[in-house]
Amino acid sequence: MAKNHPGNYFEDFRLGQVITHATPRTVTAGDVSLYTALYGSRFAVQSSDQFARAIGYPRAPVDDLLVFHIVFGKTVPDISLNAVANLGYANCRFLMPVYPGDTLSATSEVIGLNENSNRKTGVVYVRSTGFNATGTAVLEYVRWVMVRKRDETAASPGKFVPSLPKLVAAGDIGKACPPLRGAAYDYALGGSIQRFGDYASGERIDHVDGITVEEAEHQIATRLYQNTARVHFNQFTEGQGRFGRRLIYGGHVISLARALSFNGLANAFHVAGINGGRHVAPLFAGDTVFAWSEVIERLELPDRTDVGALRLRLVATKNRPCPDFPDRAGQDYDPSVILDLDYWALMPR
Amino acid sequence: MAKNHPGNYFEDFRLGQVITHATPRTVTAGDVSLYTALYGSRFAVQSSDQFARAIGYPRAPVDDLLVFHIVFGKTVPDISLNAVANLGYANCRFLMPVYPGDTLSATSEVIGLNENSNRKTGVVYVRSTGFNATGTAVLEYVRWVMVRKRDETAASPGKFVPSLPKLVAAGDIGKACPPLRGAAYDYALGGSIQRFGDYASGERIDHVDGITVEEAEHQIATRLYQNTARVHFNQFTEGQGRFGRRLIYGGHVISLARALSFNGLANAFHVAGINGGRHVAPLFAGDTVFAWSEVIERLELPDRTDVGALRLRLVATKNRPCPDFPDRAGQDYDPSVILDLDYWALMPR
Amino acid sequence: MAKNHPGNYFEDFRLGQVITHATPRTVTAGDVSLYTALYGSRFAVQSSDQFARAIGYPRAPVDDLLVFHIVFGKTVPDISLNAVANLGYANCRFLMPVYPGDTLSATSEVIGLNENSNRKTGVVYVRSTGFNATGTAVLEYVRWVMVRKRDETAASPGKFVPSLPKLVAAGDIGKACPPLRGAAYDYALGGSIQRFGDYASGERIDHVDGITVEEAEHQIATRLYQNTARVHFNQFTEGQGRFGRRLIYGGHVISLARALSFNGLANAFHVAGINGGRHVAPLFAGDTVFAWSEVIERLELPDRTDVGALRLRLVATKNRPCPDFPDRAGQDYDPSVILDLDYWALMPR
Repeated sequence: MAKNHPGNYFEDFRLGQVITHATPRTVTAGDVSLYTALYGSRFAVQSSDQFARAIGYPRAPVDDLLVFHIVFGKTVPDISLNAVANLGYANCRFLMPVYPGDTLSATSEVIGLNENSNRKTGVVYVRSTGFNATGTAVLEYVRWVMVRKRDETAASPGKFVPSLPKLVAAGDIGKACPPLRGAAYDYALGGSIQRFGDYASGERIDHVDGITVEEAEHQIATRLYQNTARVHFNQFTEGQGRFGRRLIYGGHVISLARALSFNGLANAFHVAGINGGRHVAPLFAGDTVFAWSEVIERLELPDRTDVGALRLRLVATKNRPCPDFPDRAGQDYDPSVILDLDYWALMPR
Repeated sequence: MAKNHPGNYFEDFRLGQVITHATPRTVTAGDVSLYTALYGSRFAVQSSDQFARAIGYPRAPVDDLLVFHIVFGKTVPDISLNAVANLGYANCRFLMPVYPGDTLSATSEVIGLNENSNRKTGVVYVRSTGFNATGTAVLEYVRWVMVRKRDETAASPGKFVPSLPKLVAAGDIGKACPPLRGAAYDYALGGSIQRFGDYASGERIDHVDGITVEEAEHQIATRLYQNTARVHFNQFTEGQGRFGRRLIYGGHVISLARALSFNGLANAFHVAGINGGRHVAPLFAGDTVFAWSEVIERLELPDRTDVGALRLRLVATKNRPCPDFPDRAGQDYDPSVILDLDYWALMPR
Repeated sequence: MAKNHPGNYFEDFRLGQVITHATPRTVTAGDVSLYTALYGSRFAVQSSDQFARAIGYPRAPVDDLLVFHIVFGKTVPDISLNAVANLGYANCRFLMPVYPGDTLSATSEVIGLNENSNRKTGVVYVRSTGFNATGTAVLEYVRWVMVRKRDETAASPGKFVPSLPKLVAAGDIGKACPPLRGAAYDYALGGSIQRFGDYASGERIDHVDGITVEEAEHQIATRLYQNTARVHFNQFTEGQGRFGRRLIYGGHVISLARALSFNGLANAFHVAGINGGRHVAPLFAGDTVFAWSEVIERLELPDRTDVGALRLRLVATKNRPCPDFPDRAGQDYDPSVILDLDYWALMPR
């Protein structure tokens, strides 16, 4: 039996199969520092134990996207090592805050399979869950990826296309946010006087700043997440491939855009859920990322007067500032657009 | 009201105005590790809890310059986002040691304003203070920057040029250093047998080694400090600007030179104050930094027999070793010089 | 007396001399995070406090090679600052686990001296030991380096060539590994179902993945270890030297290859000893590292039924995948080979 791990091919998956992913990870203050240093994130709740305590957290929680990347990274060797494309995310919910010292582990359940008509590839749908050391789910999301077959003549392992919610349900938003003492939220320290009620549906915000990505940065980030997807690290192979370059992990783009969004959304301190997202185009080292946001909806949460949820579109571009909000143009996107993310952020009311 | 934050322009400042800066920050062992990894600093007091405890600290204090950079970073969005030039520092005093777990916040008071005759810009003088979670000042310094006006026709917001001390006063030196058990200071572990009494006024020391800076390194450092100055991160914009390159944060140069100075000043374990400094020329990625020091003065501190203070000039160059101490030449500097810093360092007696 | 430290030259060493190295270091969770981010290591024992506790550690131990690099780094200013070549390692034994919070210090004893016939250089043999805060040895190894003479006419400081073991003795293997509760070792979380008994002498394993190294990465790593060897950091000087490039620290290559080896040796969780190793060729930024392993021997350890030791050859290449195991060819090596390391790894039985 081969000792090295080739990853799973389409025909290796089974509907209902539950995969325990390797390498649990104790998240530490070191991971948090690196996250800050890689993206420059400035949300006060995640930056300061004192600020977090004042409003009702036991200490500063770990950035939601750092939790996402660590859980996602664990799934890669089993789910997407042989993926051709990462097709989508749905119903991503942050369920419990994560703190330094928590140990994260992850499982994925195969909830859908659909062979492509060329019989060379198939789409695998998984529901991945991250757990803390007590076995409590801290994060759950669905993603679907197109995976190669090892053997094109192999029978399809099944066919089922799950129905997926377009939106994280209101009742699932805010589970990872304890009840806040809103009066203790210091808006000067938060970075803006603008809160939930100051944002309106349809409003667009240019996040102004741009940030250029270096190879060392995205590699350090992606290894921090113990993500082993080959396209991010191996110039020898990628140099002979489609782009001639290492591809930057899509999650790196999400974190850059989220950090940039502080300038305009400073008090949107918590990513409560991700409704969906599309990596419209690849990002490469040397490119400069810009971003803008659109407020899609303002949602008052059931039984919560402390925080409200903004449904936001976060659009990132490369090498193109966003004062005029480059966007979809019919079926296509402006050629500068690299990310179109639809998510829920919490903001004090 | 615009959601994104344009930064303050010259006419937005008022004499006596106190600005609370955003994003308090809990400093952690992760930040300390990154600081070590970015500069290679080797001072024993900051590197080892055991060494620090032996001489009288409760544990290893956070490097003084890391504290400076974090406090400085907080001031950028409010003070210098629209700055044309960072003109100077004065009277920078380290007042309390900072330890991992401390939460730093910062305020700035506007203590001077002076419109330039072209009416396009003005000089803003601020006294910035960093606080720990108990509200105790840990660091205080004055800096002055030339800031653009938003509207050239706007009236000047006032005119007052503060008188600033050329030197940190002797009574202010050493406040962040507890009384040391000098006998417990292990000079072999410290890295040199040379102590306060071994240095003489006028002595010059070549720090020998050189260190080449990469884009990823200075970006990671500057984001670690949550410093948002645009010139450091955005190649798309800077590529079209004056230098065609991203400019490296001046504080990065100070930290590189200070780390290099270990080779010759190994027991100068604490930066007690900065009298002033000049970023003589910009540094860019790919350049190699060298440094040398001059002992300006040896000061016995009032009521302290454990440590003395050396007043040092720390001169950094780029792409030019310093065995012959490249220096000022009349009004100008040797073209290799990038930094001329005047500071107080403590050393065991 | 010169204040800067020129390093020792061959004639400065004495047989039996014991050198206390500078800058003790408290290892923290921040160092561990950086190590993960620099290499992407995925061994469960070092990644998860929960996993480590389940099998019998008090918490996740610090990666063995991080301990090695920190101890090695301390020795550089005294032993190899004037080295022409790092000739070899022997009898490297990990003696106690190291945990975040432990303070490491190091000493070296000169155990051999041998002037070269050209009288310009000599070989220095040292036994270097790393200690924790209680003074207990955590690591001990011999290395020998060719060191320049300051003065070619100086008398040789002595001549003695120590006899060194080709292998770490069986009784010395596993001292840094507490008795494990083998039944609690979760192989799904470990990343492979394969354990000690599944590996056979002579078996070769291709670790498949490749990882491209950037200048910023190896510099950040090598500074994290407070290693001051000049060839790694100074492009100004190295650009004029033999390779025209900065040379990557050999330990960086070892850590990269070890991290890659997870894919095939996922449960070989502990480097118990290093028998010897050779840096066959230099690595430079931009190169892509691949690796393969050969099982040389499978050793049941005296009095231990929980773990066994695999003697492994870990071979790293640059810009050359290893499905066909590029190797020695007579006296020479395949031109792609950069590392040939002979070590003992522990694996659950």
